Amino acid sequence: MHQPILKNKKFKQRRTKRPSASSPSASDGLKIICLGGLEEIGRNMVIFEYENDIIIVDMGLQFPEEDMPGIDYIIPNTAYLRGKEKNVRGVIITHGHYDHIGAIPHLMAKIGNPVIYTAKLTAGMIKKRQEEFTNSPKLNIQIVDPDTDKINLGRFEIEFFRVNHNIPDSFAAVIRTPLGTVVHTGDFKFDHHPLHDKPADLNRIARIGGEKVLALLSDSTDADWPGHQISEHDVEEELDKIFEKAPGRILLATFASLLNRVQQVITLAEKFNRKIIIEGRSMKTNVEIAHQLGYLNIKPGTVIEKNEFNKFPDNRLLALCTGAQGEHNAVLMRIANKEHRFIEIRKNDTVVFSSSVVPGNERTVQILKDNLYRQGAQVVHYKMLDVHAGGHAKQEDLTLMIRLLNPEYFIPVYGYHYQLILHAGLAEKVGIPSKNIFVADNGQIIEFTKDGKREGEVAGKLTSVKVPTHYVMVDGLGVGDVGNVVLRDRQIMSKDGMFVIIVPVDSHSKKLTAEPDIISRGFIYMKEADVLINEVKKRVVKIVDKHISGKYTDRGSIRGQIRDEIGQYLFQKTERRPMILPVVMEV
Amino acid sequence: MHQPILKNKKFKQRRTKRPSASSPSASDGLKIICLGGLEEIGRNMVIFEYENDIIIVDMGLQFPEEDMPGIDYIIPNTAYLRGKEKNVRGVIITHGHYDHIGAIPHLMAKIGNPVIYTAKLTAGMIKKRQEEFTNSPKLNIQIVDPDTDKINLGRFEIEFFRVNHNIPDSFAAVIRTPLGTVVHTGDFKFDHHPLHDKPADLNRIARIGGEKVLALLSDSTDADWPGHQISEHDVEEELDKIFEKAPGRILLATFASLLNRVQQVITLAEKFNRKIIIEGRSMKTNVEIAHQLGYLNIKPGTVIEKNEFNKFPDNRLLALCTGAQGEHNAVLMRIANKEHRFIEIRKNDTVVFSSSVVPGNERTVQILKDNLYRQGAQVVHYKMLDVHAGGHAKQEDLTLMIRLLNPEYFIPVYGYHYQLILHAGLAEKVGIPSKNIFVADNGQIIEFTKDGKREGEVAGKLTSVKVPTHYVMVDGLGVGDVGNVVLRDRQIMSKDGMFVIIVPVDSHSKKLTAEPDIISRGFIYMKEADVLINEVKKRVVKIVDKHISGKYTDRGSIRGQIRDEIGQYLFQKTERRPMILPVVMEV
Repeated sequence: MHQPILKNKKFKQRRTKRPSASSPSASDGLKIICLGGLEEIGRNMVIFEYENDIIIVDMGLQFPEEDMPGIDYIIPNTAYLRGKEKNVRGVIITHGHYDHIGAIPHLMAKIGNPVIYTAKLTAGMIKKRQEEFTNSPKLNIQIVDPDTDKINLGRFEIEFFRVNHNIPDSFAAVIRTPLGTVVHTGDFKFDHHPLHDKPADLNRIARIGGEKVLALLSDSTDADWPGHQISEHDVEEELDKIFEKAPGRILLATFASLLNRVQQVITLAEKFNRKIIIEGRSMKTNVEIAHQLGYLNIKPGTVIEKNEFNKFPDNRLLALCTGAQGEHNAVLMRIANKEHRFIEIRKNDTVVFSSSVVPGNERTVQILKDNLYRQGAQVVHYKMLDVHAGGHAKQEDLTLMIRLLNPEYFIPVYGYHYQLILHAGLAEKVGIPSKNIFVADNGQIIEFTKDGKREGEVAGKLTSVKVPTHYVMVDGLGVGDVGNVVLRDRQIMSKDGMFVIIVPVDSHSKKLTAEPDIISRGFIYMKEADVLINEVKKRVVKIVDKHISGKYTDRGSIRGQIRDEIGQYLFQKTERRPMILPVVMEV
Repeated sequence: MHQPILKNKKFKQRRTKRPSASSPSASDGLKIICLGGLEEIGRNMVIFEYENDIIIVDMGLQFPEEDMPGIDYIIPNTAYLRGKEKNVRGVIITHGHYDHIGAIPHLMAKIGNPVIYTAKLTAGMIKKRQEEFTNSPKLNIQIVDPDTDKINLGRFEIEFFRVNHNIPDSFAAVIRTPLGTVVHTGDFKFDHHPLHDKPADLNRIARIGGEKVLALLSDSTDADWPGHQISEHDVEEELDKIFEKAPGRILLATFASLLNRVQQVITLAEKFNRKIIIEGRSMKTNVEIAHQLGYLNIKPGTVIEKNEFNKFPDNRLLALCTGAQGEHNAVLMRIANKEHRFIEIRKNDTVVFSSSVVPGNERTVQILKDNLYRQGAQVVHYKMLDVHAGGHAKQEDLTLMIRLLNPEYFIPVYGYHYQLILHAGLAEKVGIPSKNIFVADNGQIIEFTKDGKREGEVAGKLTSVKVPTHYVMVDGLGVGDVGNVVLRDRQIMSKDGMFVIIVPVDSHSKKLTAEPDIISRGFIYMKEADVLINEVKKRVVKIVDKHISGKYTDRGSIRGQIRDEIGQYLFQKTERRPMILPVVMEV
C-alpha cells in the first residue's frame, strides 16, 4: 500500500512536528499513541500497548481539507501495527459518529479483524455501514452494557461509564493496566437534563476517581469555549416555541447522526399533531437503525410516506431532513434549488437549521439560507435562537471531569493544537503539575514505566519518538493511492485547466504527418480561441521543424520544448498556466 | 465579448430571480439600477439614469465563489450601457476599497472613459492600481472635496457628505435629480470617536434630510447585527493594552486597505517606542500612497528596512503585515510556514489578527492560528478581544441614518437578500411605508415618475424589468471568456482528474497502427496502476476492432464508445469519474 508523504505548501504547515520520526524503542512500559485527533479534527484512533497486548479505542475518519479535491476522507495510518496484528486484543468503539467508526471497513482486515466491543446502537451503525463495503471482512462485534460490563483483553481490564453526547450510547473507557488506570472520555459533555437519554453517571465517575487514576485522556473539541454546553432541555424549549408558532410547514434540518435531536423533533411533532416525512438517505438509515434497536420512540402513524405528504394541511406537516451544512446533494439544498421531487418552499414555511455550522461551510450555508429567505421561508438558525446544543463539554465541564477523576497525568485529545493547549491550561489550573500534562502530536508515543521509581510509583513521559502518521486518503475505492502528485495535478487543473498537444511524426523522417491536434479543457472556451489555437499550432510546427534539423534527439526533449515554449506563450497571452501535455506520436 | 449565462447547480440557486428578464421599457422617469451588490457581496455599481443623462456610482469587483476555481474576480455586467456610452456623464467613486474601485481598469474603456469624481486618497489608489493594466486607457480623474464641492453632470447635481468607514475619505453621494434628491450612503458607519479621521457630519446629514429626500440607498452589510459598531477608539484601547504587555515582538496582521487601523498601529508603535517593518506588497503600496498624500502620520525613523530588523531588541519591534485572512502567499502564512525571508516565530512573539474573518476563510485562518500557536507565539484575534471594528453600520446606526434623512422611499443595498430584508424591516419600523421600500435584485430597474401624480409628487416603483447581470469573470487577462463550460470542466478535473486515450488508426484500413497511448493526470498515480492501464488498452483495442468489422462510422462514434465503456470500467474499478478524452488519430 502506497502511503504518500505530502509535501505541498499547505500540507507543510501541518507537518511541523516537534519530535523526529525515528523507529520506536522497545521498552516494557505502557504506551499510548494517538494516530489521529490531535492537531486536526477527526480520524480518531488511540493505541494502548502493554508488552504483547494492544487494544485500540475508536477508528474514525477525517474529512478532507480544501486543498484535497476529490478526496472522500482520510483514515488513520496503521503502519505502526504492521507485524503486531496478532497482539491486537480488541477494538473499543465509544460511539457511532463517523469520526470514531468511519475507518473500520478499511482497517479491520489490516489488523487481523479483532473483536469490536461497543454499545448496542453503535454496533447497529457499524454493521449498517459495513454493508456498503462488500470486500471487507465480516466483523466480530460484541455488544457491551456500559453500566455493568467488564471485559478482559490480555493484560487490560476494561469497564465503561456513560457520558452524554449528541448520539445515544456514548461511553468513556476505563482501562485498567498493570501500571494503573487510564480513562479515555471519548467525545462527551455533561447534560444534567438530557432528553431521551440518561445523564452521565457523576457518582460513578467520582468513585473511579477515588480509586486513583494514572492518566486521563479527555475531549478538547470545545476547550476554547468558556462556560457550560447548553442542555438539550433548553433546545427543546426553544424548539417547542417554534413548533407552537409556525404558521405552515416546518422543514427541520440537522445532522443525521444527532439522534437525540431527531427524537426531540419527533416528540414535538407528536405533541403538536404534525405528521413527519423523513427525507435524505442518511437520515432515513439512522432513524431506521435507531428505531429497530429501540432507541427512538415513534408513535404509529406519526411518520408518513411521500405520497401522503400533500394530503395534510401545511400546519400539520414536518419534514425532517439532511442538508443543514449546505451539502450539495442533501435534501435542503435540493429544496432550495427547486430540484426536490415533491417539496418546494411556500410562503408560510419555517426552515430550522438545528445544527452548528462546521468550519469551512459558513459561506455555503449563508447562501443556502439566503436562497430560502428569497423564496419566502422564515429561517431559524442556532445563532438566532438556541436551536442547537453542541456535543462537547466546554471549559466548566472539562474542569469538572478533571476534578472528578483527579488523574496523576493529563492528556488532552481531540482538537487543534491551540485547543489542546487551552485544555492543558485548565488542567494546570485545577492542580495537575504542568510536567504531568502531555500535549502530544499525532503518533508521538506517551510512555509510562516503573523505571527508577519506588514500589507502586509510575513515571510518565512524552517521548520524542513518533510512529508514522502521514495521511492515508480514501478516494472512491482507492485507499492510499492518491498522493501528492495526483493532488497537485488536480489543483493545477482546477485552477487553469489543461491543454493537450498531439504531434504525429513519421518515425523515419521525424516529420509531422499531419497538423498537431489540440484539446483544451478548463482553460479557455475553444470555439472562441481560434486565433490562439492556430498560433499554437504554428509554433508547434516550428518547434518540430527546428528539432528535425539537428537538435531532435528523443521524444522527451521535444516534449519538454513544446511544454516550455507553448506554456510561456499561453501565459503571455492569457496569464493562465494550464497543465500542458505534449504527446509525440511516432507513426 | 462573450458573457456566459451560468447554469450549473450552485449558480442556479443564485439565479432564482423574481422578475422576468425582458428588455427595459423606454420611460421618462429616473431609473436606478444596481448591477451588483444585491443578493451577493461585492462588484458594487449603481446606475442613475434620467432621460439622456447617466451617472454611475462605484465600479467594484466581487471575489469568486468556491465553485469558480481559477477565477480572479467577477465584475459588473455593463451590457445595459451598450449604445448609451455617450450618455454617461461621470463616475463617482465613494471610497478606495476593491469592491468599489476594482472593475475600473476593465470597464472604463467600454463606457467611453468618462471622468471619475472622487476624493484624494481614493484617486491615489485608483491611479496606483491602473498602473498594473497597461492596456487600459489613461483615466480622467477629478478630485472632489466632499465637504464643499458640488458638481453638475447633465441634469444631475451632486454633492457629498463624509461618512466613517475603515478607510479615510469615504463619502456618501447626494444626487439631486429633476424628480428629487437621492442619497447613496456608500459603505458607512458612524464613529463618534474615530481616530485620525473626522466623525460623520450628522448636522449636515440632518439638514439634507430636512430638505426632503426622495430616496435613500443605504449599506446593508451589517443589517443582521444589533446595536452599534464598536468605535475605533475602543480598538485602540485594546491594542494599547496588548502593546503595553507584549514581552517580545508584535506581528500585527490586518487588511492593507484598513488605513485607519494602520495609522493606529503606527501611532501605538511610536508611543511604545517600537520600530516598524512593513511587509507585504499591498501593505507597502497602500502605506506609500496614503503617506505621500498626507493621510498617514509617520515620524521619521519609525519605519525601518529589513536589514535593520534584527538590530533592535524584540520588545522594540513590530511587523505590520498582510495575511490576516490566511491568504496563501501573504506574509503571515509565509512566516507560519517558515518560508519568510527573515522573520520566523519566536517564543515571545505576539501575533495580533486585527481583522474579522471573511466568510469562507474560517478554516484556513483556524489552521494558520494553530500553526502559530504551535511555534510558541501568543495569538490574539477579534473574537478574544476588541482588536477589530468592522467598517459598517449595525442596526442602531442604520436606523439613525434613515431617521436623519427621512426619505420617502428606501432601497437597501449591499448585502445578501436576507440582510436587505432585515434592513427593510428597520426602515419599516421607523415609519417608511412598506410599499415605499424596494428590496431589489441585481439589475432590477427601480423607477420614479410623475405619472398620474399631482404637481410636485413623484411615484416610485420596483419594476419587473431586469437588465442583464450574469457574471463577467476575470481570469488572468481574460475578461468574460470563462463560462459555464470551462468552469464545469475545471470542477470535474479537480475532483477526479482526467484520462486521455490516444488511438492511432490507419486512415485506410481503420486498423490500429500502434498500441493506444494513455495519459492520466489527477486520477491515479500511473506507476502504480499498470494492471488497470493494461486492461484499458486491451478494451480500447477491442472497441476499435469491433467497429472496424461493421459498426465503424466516424471518429465521433468511436470516441463516444471509448468514453462510455472505459468510463464505466474505470468507475467500476475505482469509483472515480475522471474526464475521459479519447483522441482518434488517423495516420
